[in-house]
Amino acid sequence: MTSQQLIDQIKKKQTFLCIGLDTDLDKIPKFLLDFDDPIYEFNKRIIDATQDLCVAYKPNIAFYERYGSKGWDALKKTVDYIPKEIFTIADAKRGDIGNTSSYYAKTFFELMDFDSVTVAPYMGVDSVTPFLEFDGKWVILLALTSNRGALDFQMTEDPAGERLFEKVIKTSQHWGDETNLMYVVGATRAETIGDVRKIAPRNFFLVPGVGAQGGSLEDVVKYGWNDDCGLLVNSSRGIIYAGSSENFDQEARTAASVLQQQMSTILKNRLK
Amino acid sequence: MTSQQLIDQIKKKQTFLCIGLDTDLDKIPKFLLDFDDPIYEFNKRIIDATQDLCVAYKPNIAFYERYGSKGWDALKKTVDYIPKEIFTIADAKRGDIGNTSSYYAKTFFELMDFDSVTVAPYMGVDSVTPFLEFDGKWVILLALTSNRGALDFQMTEDPAGERLFEKVIKTSQHWGDETNLMYVVGATRAETIGDVRKIAPRNFFLVPGVGAQGGSLEDVVKYGWNDDCGLLVNSSRGIIYAGSSENFDQEARTAASVLQQQMSTILKNRLK
Repeated sequence: MTSQQLIDQIKKKQTFLCIGLDTDLDKIPKFLLDFDDPIYEFNKRIIDATQDLCVAYKPNIAFYERYGSKGWDALKKTVDYIPKEIFTIADAKRGDIGNTSSYYAKTFFELMDFDSVTVAPYMGVDSVTPFLEFDGKWVILLALTSNRGALDFQMTEDPAGERLFEKVIKTSQHWGDETNLMYVVGATRAETIGDVRKIAPRNFFLVPGVGAQGGSLEDVVKYGWNDDCGLLVNSSRGIIYAGSSENFDQEARTAASVLQQQMSTILKNRLK
Repeated sequence: MTSQQLIDQIKKKQTFLCIGLDTDLDKIPKFLLDFDDPIYEFNKRIIDATQDLCVAYKPNIAFYERYGSKGWDALKKTVDYIPKEIFTIADAKRGDIGNTSSYYAKTFFELMDFDSVTVAPYMGVDSVTPFLEFDGKWVILLALTSNRGALDFQMTEDPAGERLFEKVIKTSQHWGDETNLMYVVGATRAETIGDVRKIAPRNFFLVPGVGAQGGSLEDVVKYGWNDDCGLLVNSSRGIIYAGSSENFDQEARTAASVLQQQMSTILKNRLK
């Protein structure tokens, strides 16, 4: 998917919501466990109920890997079921030496046909660039994450006062551009999103941490907005586990609608 | 596996060799492609031919994920086939927010029953500690990797002159200890291994980069040795692809023997 196609979807559907498919057999409604593939069944119903309210779906791969080959089959069926105009994110946080990263890239871009994959920056250039060599595919590089441990290393300053997450973004701007590179920037440190926006004015940000983790949509928009929106705001548990009855999909829809309506108002005010 | 069990194996077998099972359908001998599960068949023969020469096997997960659910099945069968006294490493380089890391930990420690998993440090404490909560299981934390991109961020100094990889090791010494935490320290920067050894005197190091990547075993031992050896030196391609004939397993054995004999001499000289 191109950045223009993504921007067009945001304008058309009046939303920049990404829904995280962190599907967990311990958390989905019990009646689904009678199906052959409960994970896929859950995802299918969530997708049916929410696809007009979001522009992206983001399965976190840990939740699928956990069930071994069955989990991988459920993941593959899920990706195939997502309508083609919706952006797909393999939240995998991979990264290895070049030769090996190219195999991870083939897994998520060729075998699974995701539009994008999240990548960890610690191993540097040759761990990231193999993911950038696929037409129409995207790297979403971890920059400033939403969790507690983000403070351990990401905020470390060099002698010039540059923090590690800033160095990651500045350095990676030479590896890709706004057509194939996004950044993960957590909503739990909203004011810092503004610092990231200064370094990466044109790239999309994938923003986790709104909702369950405490981040505010208003602050994310205030600090992270660019001329083309430039934001994919993710919610996972707050949507997919909004209800646990047989109507869980409609309860998920209601939760997603709340965010979509806020986003629609923001888009009307900010985009011409 | 406990550290004492690992040390006992090193002394008994006179080797601290780890063999990387980076098994690739494009590189294995062609006749194996006629088998039902060529990846497993290749691994089985490599394990049969080399198990007395090494103390650890390290499948890199990218090579299995690449084939989706079939790859995961081949990985599971491989781990089950490795004799229990040999240390197993899931080279996965995972790391996510706490809740999600605990699912990765369950995948590799419970579902697949690996002894250890490699973990990326970028997301900090809550991305690593969920892996440390399993008895007899190990985190092998990326510290200083062997690839070119290691220079991008890992060597970045803070105002006090501490490099990022040193900060990762110092900080993580509060998360685990020498009974459940090892570090990845690349052989391609041998003199730096000595800097790591000063910060982490008791932890095992997993050392990639000897052989194909140009690192020297002598230098690794010179700078990284501790009283209990403290080293697992990995070789992947140099061993498993040493030959491509029907006797590839014996050619792999010959390549592994060369390293094992060097290691035996080192152990005789250095361990009482």
